[in-house]
Amino acid sequence: MSLVITDIGQLVTNDETRNGLLGVVEDAAVAIDAGTIGWVGARDDLPAEYRSYEMLSVGGSAVLPGFVDSHTHAVFAGDRSHEFAMRLAGATYEELQGAGGGIYSTVRATRGATLDELVHASLPRITRMFTNGTTTIEVKTGYGLDIATEVKMLDAIDEICNVLPIDTIPTFLGAHVVGPEFTEDRGSYVDLVAGDMMDAVAERVAFVDVFCDEAAFTVDETRWIAEAARSRDLGVRLHVEQLGHTGGAALAASIGAVSADHLDHATDEDLDALVRAGTVAVLLPGVSYSMREPAPDGRRFWDAGVTVAIATDCNPGTAYIETMPFIISLAALTSGLTPAEAVWSATRGGALALGLHDRAVLAPGMLADLVILDAPTYEHLTYRPDGGLVTQVIKRGIAV
Amino acid sequence: MSLVITDIGQLVTNDETRNGLLGVVEDAAVAIDAGTIGWVGARDDLPAEYRSYEMLSVGGSAVLPGFVDSHTHAVFAGDRSHEFAMRLAGATYEELQGAGGGIYSTVRATRGATLDELVHASLPRITRMFTNGTTTIEVKTGYGLDIATEVKMLDAIDEICNVLPIDTIPTFLGAHVVGPEFTEDRGSYVDLVAGDMMDAVAERVAFVDVFCDEAAFTVDETRWIAEAARSRDLGVRLHVEQLGHTGGAALAASIGAVSADHLDHATDEDLDALVRAGTVAVLLPGVSYSMREPAPDGRRFWDAGVTVAIATDCNPGTAYIETMPFIISLAALTSGLTPAEAVWSATRGGALALGLHDRAVLAPGMLADLVILDAPTYEHLTYRPDGGLVTQVIKRGIAV
Repeated sequence: MSLVITDIGQLVTNDETRNGLLGVVEDAAVAIDAGTIGWVGARDDLPAEYRSYEMLSVGGSAVLPGFVDSHTHAVFAGDRSHEFAMRLAGATYEELQGAGGGIYSTVRATRGATLDELVHASLPRITRMFTNGTTTIEVKTGYGLDIATEVKMLDAIDEICNVLPIDTIPTFLGAHVVGPEFTEDRGSYVDLVAGDMMDAVAERVAFVDVFCDEAAFTVDETRWIAEAARSRDLGVRLHVEQLGHTGGAALAASIGAVSADHLDHATDEDLDALVRAGTVAVLLPGVSYSMREPAPDGRRFWDAGVTVAIATDCNPGTAYIETMPFIISLAALTSGLTPAEAVWSATRGGALALGLHDRAVLAPGMLADLVILDAPTYEHLTYRPDGGLVTQVIKRGIAV
Repeated sequence: MSLVITDIGQLVTNDETRNGLLGVVEDAAVAIDAGTIGWVGARDDLPAEYRSYEMLSVGGSAVLPGFVDSHTHAVFAGDRSHEFAMRLAGATYEELQGAGGGIYSTVRATRGATLDELVHASLPRITRMFTNGTTTIEVKTGYGLDIATEVKMLDAIDEICNVLPIDTIPTFLGAHVVGPEFTEDRGSYVDLVAGDMMDAVAERVAFVDVFCDEAAFTVDETRWIAEAARSRDLGVRLHVEQLGHTGGAALAASIGAVSADHLDHATDEDLDALVRAGTVAVLLPGVSYSMREPAPDGRRFWDAGVTVAIATDCNPGTAYIETMPFIISLAALTSGLTPAEAVWSATRGGALALGLHDRAVLAPGMLADLVILDAPTYEHLTYRPDGGLVTQVIKRGIAV
């Protein structure tokens, strides 16, 4: 597919060789060849070789790289809206558990769903992500907690990837919580995750993730699982320091994890360690919003020199949020990032959190994943927080 | 138009004679005759006389009364996104004014726009409001501050009402700020608003509003303008206690204003006065969100017995927010209302804030304004905060 997108009022390139953090080009055009970027520049400078291409005029709109949502649990079955409403109405943790809520209720529903049912429950969700501009999405397993269901979740991710033109990066999160059959024998569950369960999925995932936190896995258990991942040549991403400070961020840095996610309780020493290790911090302000807790202090991470990504954490318990524009708004309005930093973290930051260097920069040779806004500038993404600004998505050069 | 909406998984009626605050009926049907509700009840009880009507099955979805957005400034020209981004990046008030920002920039743009331009700038905005479930909207003037432009804003509201099936309630807000020609002679501006300007619009509006606050009009000036409104048989609604406490809420109660809006700095005595006067409190959590300030404490108002409405305050400076579902989410997640209270305040509360007793309750004889969700319960409106849940709107019985 050859295509020139033209009459771009404002183009965000994320190209470091251009001006400013976002490498903004005004009155721009982008030429696309076979799914990758051929040329980027001021509209009037379009080289002659591209002038015979099909032209897509966007009438002065802003165009950005496609959003990269680097942390989601978007494949699941069941409905936990009532648990959420009970919490808002003041129910205690015990009352929620008594009402059949919590993560194990999603595990039960996901185990009980057929593959078809799981796909049909998840597809509308991921479709909304895509139509709101997410062109690459990470999806974690972790609602199976047994081999058959963890594999079924990967099957569902594959099927969704087959019907939607979105790139899907699967992550194995067998260590989400201890499987319900193992609550009195957590050591055996850790062995299962780091052994047979990981073997069953290793060929199909890029990353292994562990929920390292007070309510989940210890630092020692996390290290054990991470070493099992590395021995299978899998990358490591970790949930750390969300509910309290347990040392997970330091572990992530020490083992060279690609990303450390959540980080609400990270210390200044943790931030320094992440910078030195080159580990990306994935901040998840949608969880804080939905749980009515203080947002992660993105300003502090950015000023410390940490590479920051922002993501939805789309999940049925603590953040049923699908759209990256809302996360960009939250990052600016509750986490202290500027609009430009929020947009960068939702695009380039997200790609780096997944170890992807072929996208989220609009420069020759990079993937032609783009988002067209119903607005003249990217600043509208924070100015108008309630969505609906993405009018068209270009995925690998194809206008969808 | 005769129509039966059936297979409703959960129907919110707001009918006090039914169970709970929202009068929820499960597995319900609603029969509509000529734009008003004919019958409401359990689907299996549908009377024989309605069984020959056209049936609209909503497949188990939740159905609610249409949202009533009781406080908006949704008609305006110009773009202040960059001013907003500058503020997020730390610019001071003086820097924003120096960059040509602030309310006077919207006044300049609105005065400079032709009627057609003003309609074309505002129509997409109000269309998004409608498609996201708002079936009745209040729109204030107040970006003219001269007679010709205030009248032009009313003309724009009329034109929009002619092309969209939304009910529009215009409010005269000549006293938004002192007109730019009168900054050294505010007394003359107050006289103009309370005299010739009000005469020019009195036949076309239901309400007069005044921004009574530290940066705008004093309590004495507000009382003077409100008395002028009452002498012309116009209702009064007031912006009060937003930026500080000046006594506007007590004034609103003492003159029997239909609503008192903002109220961030209202005292307990103010709340008692509002209860005694029957004045509705219109809370605007989108402003707090967009301005990164503490949200109004809706819990406190509700527990004090005040009638609470929530609204977008859609405006180009402090809350470019169009959709009531997002406001419902904010009210629950940042203002302490339960999901049920937030939904009530966005429907029945909004109608009462506009003195409208013919809508926002689904009972025989009331207007057939309904919203159909892509979700089985109203709780999803707070559970899934980033929009897209309204799939269909029924306005006066017509499925749009």
